[in-house]
This record gives sequence, structure tokens and C-alpha cells, in this order.
Amino acid sequence: MIIDCHGHYTTAPPQHAAWREAQLAAYDAGRPAPPYPAISDDEVRESIEGNQLRLLTERGADLTLFSPRASAMGHHLGDEAVSQVWARACNDLIKRVTDLFPGHFAGVGMLPQSPGVPIANSVPELERCVLELGFVACNLNPDPSGGHWTSPPLTDEAWFPFYEKLIELDVPAMVHVSASSNRNFHAIGAHYLNADTTAFMQLVQGDLFGRFPGLRLVIPHGGGAVPYHWGRYRGLAAMLGQPPLDQHVMGNVFFDTCVYHQPGIDLLVGVIDPENILFGSEMIGAVRGIDPETGFHFDDTRRYVDGAGVSDAARALIYEGNARRVYPRLDAQLKARGR
Amino acid sequence: MIIDCHGHYTTAPPQHAAWREAQLAAYDAGRPAPPYPAISDDEVRESIEGNQLRLLTERGADLTLFSPRASAMGHHLGDEAVSQVWARACNDLIKRVTDLFPGHFAGVGMLPQSPGVPIANSVPELERCVLELGFVACNLNPDPSGGHWTSPPLTDEAWFPFYEKLIELDVPAMVHVSASSNRNFHAIGAHYLNADTTAFMQLVQGDLFGRFPGLRLVIPHGGGAVPYHWGRYRGLAAMLGQPPLDQHVMGNVFFDTCVYHQPGIDLLVGVIDPENILFGSEMIGAVRGIDPETGFHFDDTRRYVDGAGVSDAARALIYEGNARRVYPRLDAQLKARGR
Repeated sequence: MIIDCHGHYTTAPPQHAAWREAQLAAYDAGRPAPPYPAISDDEVRESIEGNQLRLLTERGADLTLFSPRASAMGHHLGDEAVSQVWARACNDLIKRVTDLFPGHFAGVGMLPQSPGVPIANSVPELERCVLELGFVACNLNPDPSGGHWTSPPLTDEAWFPFYEKLIELDVPAMVHVSASSNRNFHAIGAHYLNADTTAFMQLVQGDLFGRFPGLRLVIPHGGGAVPYHWGRYRGLAAMLGQPPLDQHVMGNVFFDTCVYHQPGIDLLVGVIDPENILFGSEMIGAVRGIDPETGFHFDDTRRYVDGAGVSDAARALIYEGNARRVYPRLDAQLKARGR
Repeated sequence: MIIDCHGHYTTAPPQHAAWREAQLAAYDAGRPAPPYPAISDDEVRESIEGNQLRLLTERGADLTLFSPRASAMGHHLGDEAVSQVWARACNDLIKRVTDLFPGHFAGVGMLPQSPGVPIANSVPELERCVLELGFVACNLNPDPSGGHWTSPPLTDEAWFPFYEKLIELDVPAMVHVSASSNRNFHAIGAHYLNADTTAFMQLVQGDLFGRFPGLRLVIPHGGGAVPYHWGRYRGLAAMLGQPPLDQHVMGNVFFDTCVYHQPGIDLLVGVIDPENILFGSEMIGAVRGIDPETGFHFDDTRRYVDGAGVSDAARALIYEGNARRVYPRLDAQLKARGR
């Protein structure tokens, strides 16, 4: 089967985003937020069937790890209480999708992060997502300030309580920022990729996996700039006196295939061990158009993986095997269904 | 001939950096800086002959576009007056190198930028570099805050007075940040590459070259994450309603070859028109070690360009032709020497 590790609910019924606007307006005005609106099962079903499910099927994939819209997490907006309510609403909506389409979507939660707020405060929502909603992972924002980078690096002990819970629950985290409130950074064209690059280099500098050998982090968007500059990172690790990357970080770090052209995927599979690559498309998401050079959607990443020169065994790891290993709760759910 | 567009004076005699420390200490203490130390011609000669000149010759290149050490620009340190004095001292030292080795080094200036200070205040030093010192380009820091990104994007009119002067002088700028004062960003492993990616996306979002068709910007380190995600950028340009990249930005933007492994250079030359690629190594700089996989220095980028599957004509553009076109003052200097 083909598991897409990276999809966001970018097509949620419009009252969901409208309520978010009302929530933030109420926060600004010092009023309580209005009640969350009614959304019918039909509306949820329709928002998925004509979009992600249709494209998933058309492209021959089987299941998407589905999380709330990343750019709308907006951890920099409002305050902690606002983020708590919003994260809960977003995760509950994901749960409805996974209940309506259990064969095609597994849940990945967003966290109620807020700048300056201890990450320990996100642990209860992580536990709720995994233990009550049946989610198999979460998205962790390394920069809840939205492009001002005011938090400590991911290797700082401030993050440790969260890593301990991830390990206890045996779920990985995808390192994924949200929108940018810094006008230097276009979210999709700069902030996302910069965050991927930044997170990886923090891991090279530190020794997070010496401390937490059971921690697994997915770095999306093909690892940002990292595979393209793989020689730079190999050289920097040596200059910093760190072990080689395969021993130091690549037992715990995974890159997805959200790289939207064949040469990029060719490079990714050429320099990164297939054990460290997870199929992903971020569909429907960052780049929605059709590539005039190919006639296919930019984010139809299955075409690139199929077109890349890797062995069938490596391709099977990228499409399925790695996901089952990195997301053991997904594997358990699939096995319980005989898949 | 082979022109390396990207070298910094990372091996300056030690009294240069010691004076910088004294300058900053004096600033912190509210005292005047001590006088700049004496550095003999022999010391300058020795610092170059055993280092950049030796490696340049060993690797079969001919000339380096040489600028002050990027990580030491430190625009976020001190204040504008401190930056003015430091930039002048750094540029004067580059001038001594180009005078001692006129066949092997051409000067590229650093600017006396300082956070919140209008870029117009850097124009006099640019003019001094070009008109008095004979430099052929400058480095422009898009983030003088050192990793806090408090300046407006490069497409903002705040930068326009500087672009007007670049065009008047007919010199390009390399977009190059300095050290990071934000502990999230390792300078060489994150901040540099993020800045390259960020700058490119700003150019995609804006219409800077519609306004300044004569402006030429070099984005170093192989363009950050950009070529690896070339499909993403092509798709984003379309989504933003911008013209295709080749019409919109690639008449004015150039990537260097500071990508430290063969697969990265293969991707670069595979997706980017050879007209937009300038040979560069950043030697002696970011990554100084020997790649155990090849037995050669990571930053010996000539090996990768030689090993890449491009035509002789394309390789000649990358090594020489483009540099003569992008840096017309370099071309004029070379021609005056019969080269």
C-alpha cells in the first residue's frame, strides 16, 4: 500500500475558518468566543470526497496521515487559551474525518502551542489526540512565534517534557511551522523550508538522540535545503566534532517526499538512505497547480517516486515500510484491519 | 580562465580580528576604539600565499572575487559608527590583497550596515569601494539584525536607494548574511541557507526587476534550498500570478556553485540555466575538511563542476563567461591586463 505521511485538512468546511476569525476577533475585543458552529457529517464528507480522497484515489495512494491545516495553526495569534480551544476544535474535526473515512485517513494532531508558554502545557492535548482520538502522531512547531524564532532550539531541555511523552506514547512528531508573521518570510516559499533546514542543523549541533534514542522526528518538505547540501552537513558534523550523520541523527530523523519536481526527488533518493524517506505530498496544500512542463500536478509526488531510480525494495520502504516503522500506532491500526 | 565568485578573507592576520574585539569592547565600555594595528605586507602576503592562493592554484582556478569574512561582518554588533569603521578597515585590508596579488584577487566590499539604519548610509562606502579601491561588487546583508529579521524584505522601497547606486556603478551585489545572534540558527548550517531561500522568495513575490531591470543579485550557496525545490517555486510563481521564473527573476539572479557534493551540483546544473550559474567555492570558508567519501576537500567545487554533465559551452559560462557579464568591472580589469 501507499501511505502519504503529510496531508493537511486545507479544505475544511468554511464555517471552521470563519469561527477561527470570530474567535480571534473576540480575543482582540476581550469578549468570549462564540460557540463553535455546527458542521454536518455531509459537509465534512463532501469536503473530503471531492478533494483529498478523490486525488488520493486518482493518484493510486491508499491512506493519508491527516492533520489540521498547518498554516492555520497560528500559534502566534491570541494567547495560550485561544490556542488550546483552537487546537481542540481542529483536532476534533480531524477525528470526524478519520471516523468517516477510516480506511483512508489516520489522524495527526496539532498542539496548543503559544510563544513563551512551556511545551509541557501541550502534553494533555497530545495525550487526548493519541489516547482518546486514536491519532498516530502530532505536528510540533519549532517556532510558535510565527517567524520571529523566539523559542529555544529543539535540542534545548525546555522541549524535553514533550519528547518524553512522545516516547511514552510511541508516536513521532513532524516538525512543522505555521504561518509567518514576519514579512520577510513567505510561509510556503521560505518559512517552511527554513524551519526544516534550521531544525536539522540544530539536531546536528546537539545530541538529542543520545539523550532520547526513542525519539523520532519527521522533517517535511524533503528536509528543506538539507539533502541538496548534504555534503555541507556531512562536513559540518565533522567540523563540530560530531559523529557521522548516519550515526548521529539519521537513526531518528525522516524526510518526506514533498519536493515538487523529478530532479529534486532524484537527489533525495540519491543521497538519503531509503530507510529515512517517507512518501508525502502535502496534498491539497502548498502548490496546487499543474506543472506546464509535465502536464501533471506539481504535488503529485507519486510520479516522481515512481520515476526515481530506486530498487523495488527501497520504493516499498518509502511508500509503506518506513511509515509502519516510524508510526507504530498506524501499523497497529492497519494490522487490526487486516492490512 | 576560472573565476571563483565567492571567497572571503577568512585567514586575515590575527591582529585584524583582535582589533575588532577591542573595538567592540571599547564600544561597550563607552570608550573610543584603539588605533587600528599595523599589519605588514609580508603578513598579508603570508596569510594568502599559504592559504587561498595555494588552494586556488592547486585546484586550477585563476582568480577569486574576494571580500571580507562574511561571518565577521557582524552588522548586529555595536552601532552604525562601529560598522562604518569596521567596514572601512575590512575593505582596506581586501584592497591590500588585491594590490599584492592583482592577478589572482579582485575586491568585493562589505557594507557598514546596522539594524534600523537606512541603507542609503552604506552608499558612500560602496562608492569608495568601487571608485577608489577598484572593487567590482559588494555583499549586501538582507538581515543586519543577525538572525532576527527585523528589516523589510529586499523588495521594499527602503532598499531602493542602494539598488540605484548599484546600477549607476554597474556592479552586482551578493546577498549574504553574517553571523547569527539567534541561537536557533547555526550561521553556516542554517542562517546562510535560509537567507538565500528567503531572498529568492521575496524576489518571486515582488517585482523588483520590473522596477530595476539593470539590477543583478547573486544568491550564494547554490541558491539555498531553491534549486532543490525548483518545482515548488515554479508552482508558487504561478499561484501568485507572477510570470514564469525565467521571465520574472532569472534575468537578474545568479546562483553560485557552493554546494559541497556531486549530487547537489548535478541538480543545480540540471534545473538552472547555465547562464545563471557562477562558479564559487567559498574557499577557505564554511566547510574546510576532506570528504571521506571522495578523499578531496568538500569545498573543492571545481571537481563537481568538472564532473557534472554539462556541455563545454555551459561549463565555460559557469567558469568565466557569466562572471564577466555579471561583473562588468571585473571584465574591464581583466581586459586591461590582456586576459
